[in-house]
Amino acid sequence: MSTTLEELASVSELAALAAPVTEAASDAERASWLRAVANDLHAHVAELVELADSETHLGSARLTGEVARTTAQLRLFADVITEGSYLEATIDHAASATSPPRPDLRRMLCPIGPVAVFSASNFPFAFSVAGGDTASALAVGCPVLVKAHSGHLALSRRTAELVLGALERSGAPLGTFALVEGRAVGKALVQTPAIQGVGFTGSVGAGRALFDLAVSRPDPIPFYGELGSINPVVITRAAVATRGQELADGLASSFTMGVGQFCTKPGVVFIPENSGFEALLASATTAKLGGALLTDRIAEAFPRGLQSLAADFEVEVVLGNTDQDALADGASPVILATTAAAVRKRPETLLEECFGPMTLLVRYSGEAELGRTLSAFQGNLTATIHAQPSDAISPLVALLSKKAGRVLFGGWPTGVSVTWAQQHGGPWPATTSLHTSVGATAVRRFLRPVAYQDAPDGVLHPALQESNPLGIPRRVDGVLKLGRFL
Amino acid sequence: MSTTLEELASVSELAALAAPVTEAASDAERASWLRAVANDLHAHVAELVELADSETHLGSARLTGEVARTTAQLRLFADVITEGSYLEATIDHAASATSPPRPDLRRMLCPIGPVAVFSASNFPFAFSVAGGDTASALAVGCPVLVKAHSGHLALSRRTAELVLGALERSGAPLGTFALVEGRAVGKALVQTPAIQGVGFTGSVGAGRALFDLAVSRPDPIPFYGELGSINPVVITRAAVATRGQELADGLASSFTMGVGQFCTKPGVVFIPENSGFEALLASATTAKLGGALLTDRIAEAFPRGLQSLAADFEVEVVLGNTDQDALADGASPVILATTAAAVRKRPETLLEECFGPMTLLVRYSGEAELGRTLSAFQGNLTATIHAQPSDAISPLVALLSKKAGRVLFGGWPTGVSVTWAQQHGGPWPATTSLHTSVGATAVRRFLRPVAYQDAPDGVLHPALQESNPLGIPRRVDGVLKLGRFL
Repeated sequence: MSTTLEELASVSELAALAAPVTEAASDAERASWLRAVANDLHAHVAELVELADSETHLGSARLTGEVARTTAQLRLFADVITEGSYLEATIDHAASATSPPRPDLRRMLCPIGPVAVFSASNFPFAFSVAGGDTASALAVGCPVLVKAHSGHLALSRRTAELVLGALERSGAPLGTFALVEGRAVGKALVQTPAIQGVGFTGSVGAGRALFDLAVSRPDPIPFYGELGSINPVVITRAAVATRGQELADGLASSFTMGVGQFCTKPGVVFIPENSGFEALLASATTAKLGGALLTDRIAEAFPRGLQSLAADFEVEVVLGNTDQDALADGASPVILATTAAAVRKRPETLLEECFGPMTLLVRYSGEAELGRTLSAFQGNLTATIHAQPSDAISPLVALLSKKAGRVLFGGWPTGVSVTWAQQHGGPWPATTSLHTSVGATAVRRFLRPVAYQDAPDGVLHPALQESNPLGIPRRVDGVLKLGRFL
Repeated sequence: MSTTLEELASVSELAALAAPVTEAASDAERASWLRAVANDLHAHVAELVELADSETHLGSARLTGEVARTTAQLRLFADVITEGSYLEATIDHAASATSPPRPDLRRMLCPIGPVAVFSASNFPFAFSVAGGDTASALAVGCPVLVKAHSGHLALSRRTAELVLGALERSGAPLGTFALVEGRAVGKALVQTPAIQGVGFTGSVGAGRALFDLAVSRPDPIPFYGELGSINPVVITRAAVATRGQELADGLASSFTMGVGQFCTKPGVVFIPENSGFEALLASATTAKLGGALLTDRIAEAFPRGLQSLAADFEVEVVLGNTDQDALADGASPVILATTAAAVRKRPETLLEECFGPMTLLVRYSGEAELGRTLSAFQGNLTATIHAQPSDAISPLVALLSKKAGRVLFGGWPTGVSVTWAQQHGGPWPATTSLHTSVGATAVRRFLRPVAYQDAPDGVLHPALQESNPLGIPRRVDGVLKLGRFL
């Protein structure tokens, strides 16, 4: 049942009324809200996984792991705000001797207000109702309106019930969180005056349409979209020679993980010409690595994507078939191969992500051709290098750092650990902004700086009070101080 | 002479070629470039001030101070990159015991690539060719193409010569900096594929037009615009009673500073009804506080702006006249007064900045009316409170923190100190983003995060190498470390 525009107006108004309260809550209080949500999700894991599996076919092992990841995310953000560096508290004391004399200035980050979160089809927990965007916004005091994904509506509703219950029980104000449903309401949500920012995970097409709405408002708002990525992998000749079978096994497992529906799926793999890697990969890839796709739309699009790749890039089919009926039978793995020269002819088409268990091998002659071809690529979430110590990879690392937000050495991009140093984002079209949607710094998206000049100590946030009662790390007169972590 | 599109293509190509070199340069090297530019500006201060005064009429005292501010900015950014925290270096060591096992992840900020900077009319040094946007972009390794402002073209060219000379002499690569001219080239600049971000200071109209171009590119890029602000000031009844004349003197000096052409000019001042403040301000404001405006366009717009304010808000003219010929005679100070009720009828018109020595006094009956009226305001760069210790101002502080990027207590907004804690930006239309254009964190606009997973130590930036050879502050396994500042 779609949320009506009247209902949207009502939950937006409640979110706007909640915003000053969620902002005024202490970091300790907000951390307790996040931990309450994590506890309740964990307490209902069996029920949630069963519901998710019935809607997404992702299987209970994967889904159980994803709930654990989701609760870990909520707990990480609770830790991040408790630590306090995220506030970027900075104090410059007055200096009367300078010309002109300098006032006392104290700067910190404050929440932007209510935000909209669009959940993804392919991670029904970790990038959905109580996922990373929601957790990072709530952590810093922004009320959240989540647009449910139509691919797992029952799960979304049940998750929202649990979130609402946990928030209420742990003392968050009414209006802190709401779920909305329906395609039309998504567009209205981005244009709702009370909404001050948007987190989105999905396709380039849908993301661009919503981005355009966000930036066309009379008051443009930030749109943090995680869109498309083909995650190039480069394998050197020395690496194939040394551990070809191990690489083939790893790649087979990575490009088929989640039936090839990860935003970090290795979609394009550069292999040396005449290295024999194609056969190794084909033998490592079995039909059981396929399976039912997330939605009918994705299942219908899979063979279409394969055929368009085949037509555009003069491909050779190494394994599987491009005209399968993924809707009726589930998707079976497909390996395509082509040349770097063919890829360079139309790099823009290549960059259309093809969801499903397929990867495209691109044969290259040497470093020069590799560099020339990768230079034509747009942005990606990840880029991966499989090399040997004997390979001189520094130029390749420099090139890939400009093309991706995470550069991997010797691993596979499909695992995205949730830690302080993670970066999940990259140049357009991987993301629409210079931020991450995974890891500790994801909170930065929902914060804006405010400076207070010559303020009486009593009106300041504790982080800026002279005595630093919470002992948080700060920069004082240009010098970083560890606060209670000394 | 306008830059042709062919010339633009050529300097853009040079900037793109320079980008990997400016990125690879060490922070110490880039700091030396900035200091060389500062030294050369300082060495030519008399010549530059004379040129600037002939084009802007701002007077040599103000302009000499502005050169000092500009060189101080360049030196501050040199200090900021030397300190190293700006890189946000973060290391999470591998953890094999977690489920799933965690790889080694190392994150830092990297330059986004060549950027465009649009200089402002009202700060021919500090927000112009070698101003804060240019300094912060160069500091972090982004080549800069500056669009000259037509209001001080000769000064722009001479400044650019000095910048180019200093950069060349201090070892920056060809292509690190270029000046372009002409209205048409500004639009082309924002759409140039090599350009990865834009810094802009100017009007809401021009800024919005360029913002729209930046976000409509096939690959949208960040647009950091500092646009319009009316900088509301609130004076409480107790403050008028205690130090009315002092406040009148301070306000008279602030709203006429730079002939009222500061982006932080107090354009709207809330005063208690029947407080007598109007007369105090009128007596503090003398004709000598006026003067020639920056450009013919601004001079022609000044009486038009006054008349439209007068028509929209049922104003009383407290001082001066609204139909002056500022083009022929220079602008003379104008004080208008109206009621909070009149302002609430059309808050959107009020928010059109009126450049020139004028301010609008808004009479309010009490706290309730004050809050209701300010709630209708859009974003501002600053908001100022003049209160006495007996006033309970916390609710007002909370409200103004949502409406402005800097909240002042007891001072005037026209001074913007260049320090670590400064914030110059605010909700739309003050700025288009959640960043500052003044102060240490201005560099954040031109950086994007990249994470390296399981990287060999030798390919990493020194900031991420295990031994931390430069001793910069980092976060390691979630814990902030001071590096050489221990």
